[in-house]
Amino acid sequence: MKKNIRFFRNRLGRKVPEKANLFGEIEPYAKADKRHIKYITEEQEAPGKVVASIREVLEKADIKDGMTISFHHHLRAGDYVLEMVMKEIAEMGIKDLTLCVSSLTSAHECLIDHIKNGVVTGIETSGIRGKLAEAISRDCILENAVIFRTHGGRARAIEQGDVIIDIAFVAASCCDNMGNMNGQAGKSAFGSMGYPMVDARYAKKTVVITDNLAPYPVYPISIPQTLVDYVVVVDQIGDPEKIGTGATRKSKDPVELAIAKYASQVIFASGLVKDGFSYQAGSGGISLSVAGYLADYMKEHNIVGGFASGGVTSAMTEMLEKGYFRTLLDVQTFDSGAISSLRNNPNHIEMDASMYADPLTKNCVTNNLDIMILSATEIDVNFNINVLTASNGVIMGALGGHPDTAAGAKLAIAVVPLVRKRIPIVVDEVMNISTPGDSVDVVVTEYGIAVNPKNPVLKEKLIEMGLPVFEISELRDKAYRLTGVPKRPEFGDTIVGIVEYRDGTVIDTIMNVL
Amino acid sequence: MKKNIRFFRNRLGRKVPEKANLFGEIEPYAKADKRHIKYITEEQEAPGKVVASIREVLEKADIKDGMTISFHHHLRAGDYVLEMVMKEIAEMGIKDLTLCVSSLTSAHECLIDHIKNGVVTGIETSGIRGKLAEAISRDCILENAVIFRTHGGRARAIEQGDVIIDIAFVAASCCDNMGNMNGQAGKSAFGSMGYPMVDARYAKKTVVITDNLAPYPVYPISIPQTLVDYVVVVDQIGDPEKIGTGATRKSKDPVELAIAKYASQVIFASGLVKDGFSYQAGSGGISLSVAGYLADYMKEHNIVGGFASGGVTSAMTEMLEKGYFRTLLDVQTFDSGAISSLRNNPNHIEMDASMYADPLTKNCVTNNLDIMILSATEIDVNFNINVLTASNGVIMGALGGHPDTAAGAKLAIAVVPLVRKRIPIVVDEVMNISTPGDSVDVVVTEYGIAVNPKNPVLKEKLIEMGLPVFEISELRDKAYRLTGVPKRPEFGDTIVGIVEYRDGTVIDTIMNVL
Repeated sequence: MKKNIRFFRNRLGRKVPEKANLFGEIEPYAKADKRHIKYITEEQEAPGKVVASIREVLEKADIKDGMTISFHHHLRAGDYVLEMVMKEIAEMGIKDLTLCVSSLTSAHECLIDHIKNGVVTGIETSGIRGKLAEAISRDCILENAVIFRTHGGRARAIEQGDVIIDIAFVAASCCDNMGNMNGQAGKSAFGSMGYPMVDARYAKKTVVITDNLAPYPVYPISIPQTLVDYVVVVDQIGDPEKIGTGATRKSKDPVELAIAKYASQVIFASGLVKDGFSYQAGSGGISLSVAGYLADYMKEHNIVGGFASGGVTSAMTEMLEKGYFRTLLDVQTFDSGAISSLRNNPNHIEMDASMYADPLTKNCVTNNLDIMILSATEIDVNFNINVLTASNGVIMGALGGHPDTAAGAKLAIAVVPLVRKRIPIVVDEVMNISTPGDSVDVVVTEYGIAVNPKNPVLKEKLIEMGLPVFEISELRDKAYRLTGVPKRPEFGDTIVGIVEYRDGTVIDTIMNVL
Repeated sequence: MKKNIRFFRNRLGRKVPEKANLFGEIEPYAKADKRHIKYITEEQEAPGKVVASIREVLEKADIKDGMTISFHHHLRAGDYVLEMVMKEIAEMGIKDLTLCVSSLTSAHECLIDHIKNGVVTGIETSGIRGKLAEAISRDCILENAVIFRTHGGRARAIEQGDVIIDIAFVAASCCDNMGNMNGQAGKSAFGSMGYPMVDARYAKKTVVITDNLAPYPVYPISIPQTLVDYVVVVDQIGDPEKIGTGATRKSKDPVELAIAKYASQVIFASGLVKDGFSYQAGSGGISLSVAGYLADYMKEHNIVGGFASGGVTSAMTEMLEKGYFRTLLDVQTFDSGAISSLRNNPNHIEMDASMYADPLTKNCVTNNLDIMILSATEIDVNFNINVLTASNGVIMGALGGHPDTAAGAKLAIAVVPLVRKRIPIVVDEVMNISTPGDSVDVVVTEYGIAVNPKNPVLKEKLIEMGLPVFEISELRDKAYRLTGVPKRPEFGDTIVGIVEYRDGTVIDTIMNVL
């Protein structure tokens, strides 16, 4: 420390140098309440961050034309929040918004009007379904192409600044006046807050919409008060009947059971099912039946898994309770049984989308996966999978965590019927690529199994076991024999969707359907 | 979307435009394993992020001269981690490091040698005690002045980029191979990880040092794998005997009891003790006795507090268990009873230092406090408090959350004996200002009470109640009558400490003692 440095006196009369090593230029202390940290007025104290209405919060958060705003879809088909907020925004005459939404459901058809009126000109999402998807695919109503991102890719894009969220709207089934919140308590409980946990960390402003203002502090704290600007209380954030999907049960369909049986044999052959292994599967009937066979095998061999992850159903929480898995890692909770498990079972752990699947974080859960059971709308002879567009070329699905889990898992198995409603599922070339074939290890159909040439050892083993192993082109030929070669839809020359791979590169483009 | 845009084909043969609205320039998909997200090698898979030794991790983390590295002091006097890491760093010949440590204890005297050898040239901390503090204060061993920060100010400085941590070293009593960790389980359990939760979010690299590598995933997750680069397993991160301070009990000293009695009457007079109120106090005997009187009052009036916060002792967890407070918000856990409570009681909530006290976050807990019981080494006639330097001018304490809680609480009461070991505690001018008088509402001594002129209403009320209310200058006069006017130490002209206020301004300067 230089001895001849100049000093001045701060407001308390204390000598302070004008600068110091390490510290740099020094600003002298001015006052304790300089930043309103003392003598809070009564008015500020009582409501905390609570604002009277959505309209008022939009004004306070200074919403403007051209902003990017975010929502999350944990309330699924029961979500009231997006529609409530967008209605007020439209009435304020705001235009040209980009919506960054974790996914869009049937609860979001109001967007058709908001798009037609110019309120919304951009959408970044994991998926779109129903009438909204039809209107975008066929009528090209949206000014800019939809950017489709995986759950991991969305977290990455937010964390890297590819998307800058001006205002994040977060639905919470339980929140206090300072913004500590969760989705586990309250009449509209929906479980994990995996997606908006990332939004709130990076958004310029975060607004909570809740129908359950609870005493301070609310806990467990999924998103803390440090990230929240405003809280708005409404009558109802969603329709509880539609928030939780009904618990799905194992399939009784013989085709699905055959697929599940083959898939489980592939899993056992892989040698990956051992103490501490990890597993993820979708919520469909085939997946649940695979889990049933897997549970029998684990019981017989006295194996306990380390974790199951992803979207969590009560089929998974039952396996947790029975001790098949030590933990569940939950980014999205699908039904009321699973919501109750997250609330009550400490081994059922909430995680954010970054921890779940961001490929560029310091390590994500999907990259630790051993076994992943994938669904597919179509799969082609290069093992590429489409989960976004239907055979008529129209958008109808969601990337979700599909490309993330396929890329991360040691064994990614696609389970598909060869033919679905007279449409071939194994095809020459998929309509659009959601997940690259490089990530897909095995395809299992009711007719037989195809192994990606990248896994010659596994292929040999399955043949030795006497399983019906084919080239994937043989599966395609079999499918085409049953259905005929599928006719391609006619596409226009407007780009309606950009399909981003999880790392931010572009894997495909979706054109309008004529 | 322009229709005449140029397309190219990505590696999967899919048409991709060169750019798109919203998206900007497009990088075509290259491969799924481009960023090593597929086909993890066996070698990578087994150890995860585990590195064989501290030496190896220092090399991998690329430690260099001039870096800023961070540690935390949750292991208190039992900490082995700082010494272990610094020993290896010194052996590697690294020089000119700045240490950003949440606080320094008697476990860190090794730093005297590392400073003398030029390994460490800067320290940013909440406090320093013992021989290290003596050597800095008297012998000016450190090249740069110590920057003293409050717990909230440290979080603020990290979040705002005033401090950029190159490598954060985080002690964890339980950690998995990917870096999910907590301080609640294991032989060296220490409780909340409030301070390094902030470090890990902002540090360029984060290294975990653990003596308990547990199966993946470790939970509860205080710091997630997404923030961790490396994990090193050592025999022992600390001495359990010294990690938890012994449970302190209520005072039996008549002076302390008198102070506690007056302080509790001030609290009751304030009208702040009502359902949902919040409270924080230190761990000393006076504080514990105040809590005892408070508990009696709450029981009598059937009042349940919302939360108690800060460093948590088993005296507080007992109040939690008995239902006096609905929750505890815990940034640092002081004894084994409290550690066990954090592990087992869901109403005992871990929080990070940013949520605790960062004045510039979207709202911190200390700014929601109703009542704070403050300690003081000295307090002057302007209500300024010193907790950093002794009456001989030598550094001997820590800012901790003192300025944060004083500034945030509606009622901040300093509880002090008028005289301590023949040294006056109420003085004309404190040796150094830690907490500005503006933040301090009331001073309570065994002789009487002084109310800050900013609180005339409270002063009137206390007089009406018949309490011994004095001007603070009268308390000083009384103290000086008992001890004589204190003699000032002689200071040199070297700045050995810069005392930063929580908002980043400088409130005082500490000079070397001759």
